[in-house]
Amino acid sequence: MNANGRVILQSIGWVRSTRNEAIDDDWDKIETRIELDPKQFTPAAVASLDQFSHIEVIFHFDRVPDDEIVTGGRHPRGRKDWPLVGIFAQRAKGRPNRIGSTACRLLGVDGLTLRVQGLDAIEGTPVLDIKPVMKGFLPRGEIREPAWATELLEDYW
Amino acid sequence: MNANGRVILQSIGWVRSTRNEAIDDDWDKIETRIELDPKQFTPAAVASLDQFSHIEVIFHFDRVPDDEIVTGGRHPRGRKDWPLVGIFAQRAKGRPNRIGSTACRLLGVDGLTLRVQGLDAIEGTPVLDIKPVMKGFLPRGEIREPAWATELLEDYW
Repeated sequence: MNANGRVILQSIGWVRSTRNEAIDDDWDKIETRIELDPKQFTPAAVASLDQFSHIEVIFHFDRVPDDEIVTGGRHPRGRKDWPLVGIFAQRAKGRPNRIGSTACRLLGVDGLTLRVQGLDAIEGTPVLDIKPVMKGFLPRGEIREPAWATELLEDYW
Repeated sequence: MNANGRVILQSIGWVRSTRNEAIDDDWDKIETRIELDPKQFTPAAVASLDQFSHIEVIFHFDRVPDDEIVTGGRHPRGRKDWPLVGIFAQRAKGRPNRIGSTACRLLGVDGLTLRVQGLDAIEGTPVLDIKPVMKGFLPRGEIREPAWATELLEDYW
């Protein structure tokens, strides 16, 4: 990072999926792979990852155009019957820095390829980081959320 | 993103903490704030965020020097009695892209300042994104992890 807050990252790999455009629902029904960049990594980078059932994938919503980035508020999914909430109070893709973060099931590791289920990222999405899901890092204490957030996820997976 | 996988981000804010260096444990005992950048945002960006009990904070481990970035494997916390595992099978800060991601309790929102508990980031850490924790985005199904991962978190919070 430099003094003005700019951070330069390098994609560590890419998503391979049969889904080529962002659709709001049914993400669990598609098979997805993550292919780590063989120019940067060997399988040592994912050694023992298969001992975890879930991974957290941090990725870049690179197909979102500049004019769809919201810095204030919006209605989730454009639904006017849901409240107008700040971009940091939702997980929409049109957000500053275009970062996505999703915990998904790890089905298998084969060399630099990870097979996953439940990753809501389309074909070609740059992956910025992969972390194991550890129980001790899950949210602690009772989780409270507004009604629209519960409703939004009803058909998502 | 450009063709070679480079991604340029802009910090959305900074962590304010009484902790100035990375220590492995007791992160729940310190009070932490996130101050969003007033040059980029108004309070509209966090409207209704207080309806969520927890937020996910994505940040940059900017104090980690280049020679501490691991691209293969290492023993978590340098402990030789724990296995040698790949950097993407652990959550250590010395990782490609230096991205941290932590779910913490949201104690309050005051303008562009968020008060949080359980954020394992030190004073001055650049924040890259903030998302609400939604129940529907938690890992689904039984979570499995190796014994060292459970042990590592014993005194962390």
